[in-house]
Amino acid sequence: MSDPLVIREDRGPTTHLTLNSPGNLNALSDEMLAALQDALDRLAEDTGQRVIILKGAGRVFCAGHDLKQMQAARQDEDDGARAWKDLFDRCSTLMQTLPRLPQPVIAQVHGLAAAAGCQLVASCDMAVAAEDARFGVNGVNIGLFCSTPMVALSRVMPRKQVFEMLTTGEFLDAARAREVGLINRVAPSDELDAATQELAETVAAKLSSAVRIGKRAFYEQADLTIEAAYALTGEVMVTNMLDHNTEEGISAFLEKRPPNWRRSE
Amino acid sequence: MSDPLVIREDRGPTTHLTLNSPGNLNALSDEMLAALQDALDRLAEDTGQRVIILKGAGRVFCAGHDLKQMQAARQDEDDGARAWKDLFDRCSTLMQTLPRLPQPVIAQVHGLAAAAGCQLVASCDMAVAAEDARFGVNGVNIGLFCSTPMVALSRVMPRKQVFEMLTTGEFLDAARAREVGLINRVAPSDELDAATQELAETVAAKLSSAVRIGKRAFYEQADLTIEAAYALTGEVMVTNMLDHNTEEGISAFLEKRPPNWRRSE
Amino acid sequence: MSDPLVIREDRGPTTHLTLNSPGNLNALSDEMLAALQDALDRLAEDTGQRVIILKGAGRVFCAGHDLKQMQAARQDEDDGARAWKDLFDRCSTLMQTLPRLPQPVIAQVHGLAAAAGCQLVASCDMAVAAEDARFGVNGVNIGLFCSTPMVALSRVMPRKQVFEMLTTGEFLDAARAREVGLINRVAPSDELDAATQELAETVAAKLSSAVRIGKRAFYEQADLTIEAAYALTGEVMVTNMLDHNTEEGISAFLEKRPPNWRRSE
Repeated sequence: MSDPLVIREDRGPTTHLTLNSPGNLNALSDEMLAALQDALDRLAEDTGQRVIILKGAGRVFCAGHDLKQMQAARQDEDDGARAWKDLFDRCSTLMQTLPRLPQPVIAQVHGLAAAAGCQLVASCDMAVAAEDARFGVNGVNIGLFCSTPMVALSRVMPRKQVFEMLTTGEFLDAARAREVGLINRVAPSDELDAATQELAETVAAKLSSAVRIGKRAFYEQADLTIEAAYALTGEVMVTNMLDHNTEEGISAFLEKRPPNWRRSE
Repeated sequence: MSDPLVIREDRGPTTHLTLNSPGNLNALSDEMLAALQDALDRLAEDTGQRVIILKGAGRVFCAGHDLKQMQAARQDEDDGARAWKDLFDRCSTLMQTLPRLPQPVIAQVHGLAAAAGCQLVASCDMAVAAEDARFGVNGVNIGLFCSTPMVALSRVMPRKQVFEMLTTGEFLDAARAREVGLINRVAPSDELDAATQELAETVAAKLSSAVRIGKRAFYEQADLTIEAAYALTGEVMVTNMLDHNTEEGISAFLEKRPPNWRRSE
Repeated sequence: MSDPLVIREDRGPTTHLTLNSPGNLNALSDEMLAALQDALDRLAEDTGQRVIILKGAGRVFCAGHDLKQMQAARQDEDDGARAWKDLFDRCSTLMQTLPRLPQPVIAQVHGLAAAAGCQLVASCDMAVAAEDARFGVNGVNIGLFCSTPMVALSRVMPRKQVFEMLTTGEFLDAARAREVGLINRVAPSDELDAATQELAETVAAKLSSAVRIGKRAFYEQADLTIEAAYALTGEVMVTNMLDHNTEEGISAFLEKRPPNWRRSE
């Protein structure tokens, strides 16, 4: 029996998901997409896990799609059109699953995040990277413009910087990636694990019912007019206030003591 | 008779509004929200005032909502739901009043801008902060996710950086707040007043009829498609050109002399 | 016969368009708008040219509209309203032509990019600037708020930074312009030509059919919901994959050899 393509390891309330196909730089093959989608779908139901860290085994985080597999579809009767449409549908579903998960998802990036691998970073709620990590949407170098990755990148980064990455195929280093908003934090390579785990534990220590409704509202309000966004989030605040654990959290703060949260939330 | 909750002081065409409840860190209580809304509504009619500076008395700018008052509403028959809905409605109205005012509003931030206090900074047109000021949406620390503040923050800052602030509750210093777009300028603490006043006077010296129609168009066009935004602003430019003071401004520029504007505008 | 207002020079697949009216700082007069629109419309049909560089002759890139011409329209029966409406329509059409061109357009900025000249920079896909170049939307200084330029600026820069530029009329230097996303690269003045040409050649070396469909999709997806953006770009990826040159590009990559692209694309 082969190694699993996605390894799940729970460290307390934080779940580590490792893309485990180092031989092809953790390419998002049909099998990898299915394994990762499956792992995420299971976590969506697993309210005990409060934060997810997504990382890669081997030398890099993720180098993008599995080009050999994509090229093989050219043998189909329709030259591959249906297979590719299906592939990009599954990939786009995966990318949109990340913001829809109840838990915050942190990309832990080392080595390389390229093409759909860079899209994966942009699609996670947050990202921590090693100092020597590099980020690119370099499909244009082989004649395949990174059109789906640009959807994710252009929603977290300024427009001209995305355009440059897409048309030059050039890579950003971690410091520049943080400057433009693509990632949150940079750590020395040998401290990347610890830095990401620390961020995860900070978030995991919060009231997860509050984080859950907050994360959902975060993405729901993003594309609304400001009036509609306030109407939505005002209701969310009321729901949040009605939570008994929030009552306790505020009481504890006013009484200058730590909150005693019932962790069934 | 008690001190007013909001102190208004006019320095020539610049109005300083000071949140004046230092004992509770200028919390946005029911009374403070009403006093600030009232002061802003009056300024909306006062065309003699060209710029508004919003600041706080005491040690901080504003620490957010009045948690004691919010907690007290739990005694209501409906456990507080209606009172909170009403509170967030009033607060959201206040936040949306700032971009709708005819005058540019500058937040002058010292000490702390937390939760709804940080939302207030994000909702102002511009912000100047003391070097040691800190910015956070830290409600998550007490189990109350800052869902309404995120509406304002996510419209001025990159997405991942807002998500990090919301879910970690951690604070940005002034330099980082400027880097991510939350504020415009940073000044040494003892020069904060002067730096903010200088920015205000720079804006107040412009033709206020032009600033007024420009500010309105700025927010109206922000969420439109680019085609609709150009259709709108093209009309605004024509209206602006038809202003006699603009005729004089352009003539003065072409003749290399200062404009002689009739200040009835 | 007078010098042309827009000089076109093709250097291989890169076309240089030079605004050539140094006497009035390359102002966007009626004649200049027409000449530039015409040059761009011709390039839209010219698939041999893969990248466009837009630059200015003389001391500056472009100082904005032709104020003398605008002022002259006040002699019209309607005080100029129809003439200005028409002017802003033509100018907005020009600005929107840049993202709609099949080729990436790079602004090469030296000296000054002011008002509609700064809008031109914001409207190009990318921009490279000399270290001593300055960027401003300073119409407010003469009583004419830069309402149309703000459409372009507010789509590439954070909101508060645009507001500050519009209401203070102050200029950004090149380093700050890069920080806020208005431009991509900064070069020493005497290396500006070479730095811009290098960026152009990098992009021109890519498969232009891929760049073409990618650029179109880039702007089409920008204002869509994320679901609609993925639906659109998934189709674009399939179209891109069906290109024979893309098949060759991927094969070459997998075989670790340079692609042999048929340049009829």
